[in-house]
This record gives sequence, C-alpha cells and structure tokens, in this order.
Amino acid sequence: MKKKTIIDELKKIVGAENVLADNEDMVTYSYDAAVLDAVIPIAAVMPENSGELGKIVKLCSEYCLPMTVRGAGTNLSGGTIPHNSGVVILTGKLNAILEINEADMYAVVQPGVVTATLAAAVEKKGLFYPPDPGSQAVSTIGGNVAENAGGLRGLKYGVTKDYVMGVSFYDAHGEHVRSGSRTVKCATGYNLAGLMVGSEGTLGVMDEIVLKLIPLPKARKSMVAVYKTIEQASKTVAAIIADRIVPATLELLDNFTIRAVESYSKAGLPLDAGALLLIEVDGHPGQVEEDGLRVEELCREFGADSVKVATDENERDRIWAARRSALSALAKLKPTLVLEDATVPRSKIPAMVKSLQEISQKYDISIGTFGHAGDGNLHPTILTDKRNKEEWLRVEQAIEEIFDRALELGGTLSGEHGTGLAKAPFLEREVGRSSILFSRRLRKALDPNNILNPGKVTGAL
Amino acid sequence: MKKKTIIDELKKIVGAENVLADNEDMVTYSYDAAVLDAVIPIAAVMPENSGELGKIVKLCSEYCLPMTVRGAGTNLSGGTIPHNSGVVILTGKLNAILEINEADMYAVVQPGVVTATLAAAVEKKGLFYPPDPGSQAVSTIGGNVAENAGGLRGLKYGVTKDYVMGVSFYDAHGEHVRSGSRTVKCATGYNLAGLMVGSEGTLGVMDEIVLKLIPLPKARKSMVAVYKTIEQASKTVAAIIADRIVPATLELLDNFTIRAVESYSKAGLPLDAGALLLIEVDGHPGQVEEDGLRVEELCREFGADSVKVATDENERDRIWAARRSALSALAKLKPTLVLEDATVPRSKIPAMVKSLQEISQKYDISIGTFGHAGDGNLHPTILTDKRNKEEWLRVEQAIEEIFDRALELGGTLSGEHGTGLAKAPFLEREVGRSSILFSRRLRKALDPNNILNPGKVTGAL
Repeated sequence: MKKKTIIDELKKIVGAENVLADNEDMVTYSYDAAVLDAVIPIAAVMPENSGELGKIVKLCSEYCLPMTVRGAGTNLSGGTIPHNSGVVILTGKLNAILEINEADMYAVVQPGVVTATLAAAVEKKGLFYPPDPGSQAVSTIGGNVAENAGGLRGLKYGVTKDYVMGVSFYDAHGEHVRSGSRTVKCATGYNLAGLMVGSEGTLGVMDEIVLKLIPLPKARKSMVAVYKTIEQASKTVAAIIADRIVPATLELLDNFTIRAVESYSKAGLPLDAGALLLIEVDGHPGQVEEDGLRVEELCREFGADSVKVATDENERDRIWAARRSALSALAKLKPTLVLEDATVPRSKIPAMVKSLQEISQKYDISIGTFGHAGDGNLHPTILTDKRNKEEWLRVEQAIEEIFDRALELGGTLSGEHGTGLAKAPFLEREVGRSSILFSRRLRKALDPNNILNPGKVTGAL
Repeated sequence: MKKKTIIDELKKIVGAENVLADNEDMVTYSYDAAVLDAVIPIAAVMPENSGELGKIVKLCSEYCLPMTVRGAGTNLSGGTIPHNSGVVILTGKLNAILEINEADMYAVVQPGVVTATLAAAVEKKGLFYPPDPGSQAVSTIGGNVAENAGGLRGLKYGVTKDYVMGVSFYDAHGEHVRSGSRTVKCATGYNLAGLMVGSEGTLGVMDEIVLKLIPLPKARKSMVAVYKTIEQASKTVAAIIADRIVPATLELLDNFTIRAVESYSKAGLPLDAGALLLIEVDGHPGQVEEDGLRVEELCREFGADSVKVATDENERDRIWAARRSALSALAKLKPTLVLEDATVPRSKIPAMVKSLQEISQKYDISIGTFGHAGDGNLHPTILTDKRNKEEWLRVEQAIEEIFDRALELGGTLSGEHGTGLAKAPFLEREVGRSSILFSRRLRKALDPNNILNPGKVTGAL
C-alpha cells in the first residue's frame, strides 16, 4: 500500500490533526534513548481513545504494517525504534487515570499516563505506587509495563511486574483481549498480564492497565555515606542486606559519577570521595528509627568517613534529585553515553565493581558506575564518541565483556532496561537456544505476520 | 503404541521400581481434590532427577502421549486429573531444596518440595516464604506454581506468582528452557517464568524453580473477633482495609463453618457466634502493637462482642490450626464437598456474603462460607451428595450463579484454585472469547500435539 493511502486511512480514524508524517516529525520518532541507528517510520498516529487505537491496529493488521508503540521514548534498549515501513503509535493522548480505587487499592490507567503523575495522584490519597524508573518524570506507564521498568525502590518494593494486576490489549489481529483482574488473587486462565510485562509491544497493543497500590509508608529517613573507596561502599551494601535490613533505596555512585553530578547539580557532593551510598529506609516510624541507626552503624563499620542523615524533606529531596540527575549529568560530558544495565545477585556487587574497573583499564575507556546497588542492578556508564570508530570498537568489546561477567556471576543482561534491539543479539548467552526458540514459536503464533514491533526481544524471527 | 511398550520404555529410563501401572495405583492417580469424574491413566512414573524427567518428556513427545504432572494432587480444579491414554509424572522424588541463598534471599527447589518443608527450612535461617495455601502441609511448590496457589497471607504478601523469580522446564518437545533469574530485577527476554505460573502443566514440565525470600517479620499478633452476624464481620474487613492497615491474614468463618470446625478440632470456638474474624498483624514490633490495637478498636466499633488476643505462640498456633482444619471439618459432614473460590474486590465482601445467603436459600442447599476475606477470596463451600441427582442439579445451578455474581461485582472465577477442568467451561464469561482464542493460539504453538495436560485451562483446543 502506498504511503499516501496509509496516511489517508489513519486520518479517517483519528482526524488529520492526529497524524504526523512530515520529515521533521519522522526524525523525532526515529530514535530513543539507546545508542542505536535511527530508523525513519512512514507516519506517527495519536489515537484519543481505545476505540481509535483498536481501529489503527486493525488497519495495520489488514495491510501488514509494522507497529511500534511509543510513550516517552526514554527506554535504553531500542524498544521504540520503529520499522522503516511501519507506523509509530503515540500514546500521548491516551493519558487518563481512569480510576483510583482507595477501598480496593488499585488504579486503572491508560498507557500514556506519566509515571510521576500517577505516583503523585495516588499519594494524594495516602496510597503508594512504588516503581520509580529514573525517567519517571516523563516516562509512561505503558512504556514501564512494556519494558518491565525498575527504579530506585526495586530492592524493597520490586519492579513494574510486581504491580501489574491486569492488562487489556489489542492483539495482532485487532481483537481486544482481557487478562488479569482487579483482585489481588486471580488464578483464572493464563497469566497473560504477566506475559505482556516486558514484551515490548511484540505481543499486543495495550489500552488499559490495572495497577496494584499499597499504603504509603508512614515515615522515611534518607542518608548519605561517604567512602574513600568503592570497595568499602560495595561491601557495606552486602553487609546491610546480610543484616536483614531492606532499605527502600540503596544507591551507589562512584567518584566519576559524583564529579559529573556535582558539576551539573551543585548539590554539595564531596568531590574527593571514592564513592557514595545514598540510602533511604521507610515504613513504620519505629522501624525507620531502628533500621536507620543500624544502617548508619554498618556504614561506619565498613569504612564510611561520614554518614549524613537528611534532617528535613528539603534535604531529602536534594539528595534524590542529585541521584536522579546522574544520567543527564554524565550525558553532558561526551557525545555518546552508553548506559548499561548488567545486574548480578546483590552479594556479587563487590565482585562486579572490581570487574568493571578491570574492564575499564583493559579497554582504556571511561566507565562511570552508579545504580541500584541494593538489588544488584548497577549502571556501568561508558562515555565515548561513536564517531571515533577505533574507540567505539573497544567500547563494544567492553560491553560484551561486561555482559559475560554479569552472567558468570549469576546475573542477567538487563535488570530493568529491557532487551529491545540492543540486547536481542546477546539473549542466547543468558537464556540458551531453547528458550529463544520457545519464545519465537510463541510470538509467531500470536503475530504471524510479524507486525508487532518487529526485531525486538527475540531478534528477527 | 501399546501400553506394555510404553511401560517398558519408562522402566528403561527410571528403573522398574519407579513405574507404577497396577490397577490400584492407577485408581490412586485418577482423581484429585476437585469434584470431577475420575480418569484412569495408563501409567505413573517417578523420575529421580532432572535428566530422567527430560527423557520421560522426550519419550512422551515422540509417542504423542499426554502427560499430567502431579505433586500432592491437592488442587481443587481438576488440574491433575490425567488423560486416559496418558502418563502421570509424579514429582515425589524431585524433592530437593537445591539452595537457600541467605545473602541474596532466594531459594532454588525442585518441583516436588513440600511447601511447608520449604517454609520451615528458610525460617530456620531467619527468612520467610510467605505463600501458604491451605494444603501447605502436603502441597508441593511445583503444584503451587502450576496453580498459582494463594493462601491466608495473600492480602499482605501476595501469592505464589509474586515469589517466582525463575523457572526452568522441558517444553513439549523435551527441550530444556530457562527463564527468569536469581536477581530481583530481570528484564531479559519474555517473562516466561511469569507465564508458567498458573499454566497448570500445559506449557511445559518444570524441573527447577527459583523463589524469592524475604526477611522474617520480627513480631506478630493474632486475635479472634466474635460477631453476632456475618454482616458485622464483613463490614469490619472493609473498615480495616479502609484504615490502610494491611494485616498478614484476615480470615472469616461463618456460623456453619464455626460449628463444623469446633466439632472437628475442639479449639474452643464460640458455637453461637454468627461469624468470626481471625486476624494476624505482623512486622516491626512497634507497628504490630499499633496495628493490633487499631484493629481491635475497629472490630469493636463494627459490632464484635469480644476480641481475644493470643497471648503466646501456643494460643496463636491453636487459632490457625483451627482455621486450617476448616476444609477437613466440613468434608466430614456430607459425602460431597464443593469448595468454591469466587473472588471479589475486597470492598465487595459484604455484597458477596449477602448474595451467598440468597443463593443458598434460592436453591435450598447448604453453603458454608469461610476464607480469605481480606483479599476478597471467599470459599463458599457446598455440602451435598453427588449421588442425589436432583440436588446436584441445584448445586450446579447455584455454582453458576455464584460465578456470575462474583463477575458482576468485578471479581474473578478463581482467586487461587486455578482453572483446571472445573472452570475451563466458564472462562469465557470472565475473560471473553478473544482472550481464550489468544490463549489457545499460544498454547497450540508451544504444544502442537496437545500432550501437555490436555483439556486444562483453555478447555479442549
């Protein structure tokens, strides 16, 4: 079918104002936060309700047009890079919070709702939606579900997967499929809602998501521990967990990241520290008090030069704002930033930190390390310039070695960034051939014409 | 293939002592805890390790023999009723706890490990595996995963699904598939581990399961609140949740169940009470103290005649032993017991309780009601005699009406018992036709010869 016909058909569904096809627009939707080649789609379309979304999927199905759904495009694995003969479905206008049910503690949302918007809305009612990916200020719930986004609170509260109670979606044929429920317990039929989490738009196009909410913790306490060496910091992490304390967040920043963040945010971080731990405990006030003191003790025992406890909410917010600026701060330093996501069992954090230092030296590249140390999810961040072909080759080799090392330590290629295009070629190293073949059979049965975000997760079919 | 050949081939894999084919044995494996017709399989086989399990699956695959995996057979939906030309795979000898990792808080187990055995083993190390299905003393982890078992602690701690980090299994072709990880965060490939949960043996045969563990709560407090009417009790449940207290367990027993349990367990329950709430709060000692007092207050406010707090562990254990005996106690009263599992959003518990009373009167049948009121998961229990055809017809009509009422209230057909054979015919009412067709396409692609526990979950393909 001709491009013009497709665009005309799309306009019939959503109106001319909701179809974008200019070259400038197409460039906008040709890439995401991953360091991968851009791909220009044929059009982008912005449905305003579920009915329009269904018609778009049906149209694409009839004409075998690849579809890529895009929320904020903040994913780091190429999950929203479109197909060059495909359509980008934008969820920006599917942004209604349909229900916040206080009595039964769940929310029903459209996929385009911004994560932080939902979090703020439920907090007003004394409820808590814990998953807080780094990009929560702009990322969408649909994208979070599609990528199984994590965040700073994974250690204590889990990730997006742990909050998805139900999902409804249009399948590759445009049929509307429901799964899951509004009850905490549901053992009816296959766990399709669970399967949709992390499937990166390859199994269906979501129109509604039911999320579990929990009561807001009554108290919290944040602190910053300053270390001479990253070894001391990483050993503290292991010691805290071994002490059976589960902080809400337990974040590590190395010297490289500290300097970048400080120059960007002027938060007053100690520039000469080898590493920082940013820690928050939350829950019942009595528990926060006890856990806070014990964590402080452990930090000192494992070599912290100082431990500073935030005395009010402003100070607390400054700590976390600084942490959340890490990616932006690092991105300013060099033309290309590769944010990796290799994750290991948390007791292996000291070993992984050591390996990252060795890999950095071996390939003579800069690797900043920060991330969610408490749940084993480090973000080794490589600063480079992709146009420097010789260096880029070394970067690619270093990334492969990081992957292999994480797997050797019993870890995973991606803790929270997804497989997308970026990690699909490496998937076999982690899960084995049989798992990929199994996944491809599953996918092919559900999307026989390979129109749902082709190339992602399982690689080319 | 002839029965004798199959048995000979199985014996070659596991040794003669691990293959059962006598008529008496086959009767043993012809039924489970659901009220459904028994089906005699051709043999039962007991592999001793994953290698043998893989060979059995491969053999069945080559000869297109239906396979039904059976743990303790305690499921209530017919999930382990075999096929009459099929083999039953018993997991009794695949019962090793392979690892309890204290530092990283996970356990790796074979499917035949008994739930309570695992719970006790991790508790010794100060860790906690919360899912506690009613049958935990005999049920197996493999069965719990296959059925997505719940239990008394669903309200605060979730269900089996919330603790499965990884699963490895043999697919329908006998290929070994890995999924998930040993890390809290994992966004690599499809969430196949999540898909396996609740799939009732229809997508693969599990050989290893990785389970998340959490720190053991430091304190707990149990109490019994006695009410004149079940309405008062069910309104208290809604009030506790509305107060943002999340008890570990919040169980309801109606008068019918109280009498049955008391005659069976002699636990000292008040025979004239209209209903009881059995409540446990746990966590940090300060929180337990506060929540305990507030719950007591709410119980009285909503009409409890008395609230008795267990003063020691013995008294606590007696309360929960009495609750756990409910099913056995009820089962003694009549030849046939149908334990239903309709679940509603918890705020709808009062409405559901009222409907159950109306349905009981309308069809002139005895319905005892007990269950996990805190998570909306009631177990209406019908006592009858299946040989009384006239009454059985009324029972079947009542069950259908219970299902429809739960769905009207925004609930689900099954909170924790699974779909199995029992609920497959009703699935469409909840999830709709598209969801079933989607599920069948998925299943057919993964098991083209329909040999993995045929007939369960999606009905006949």
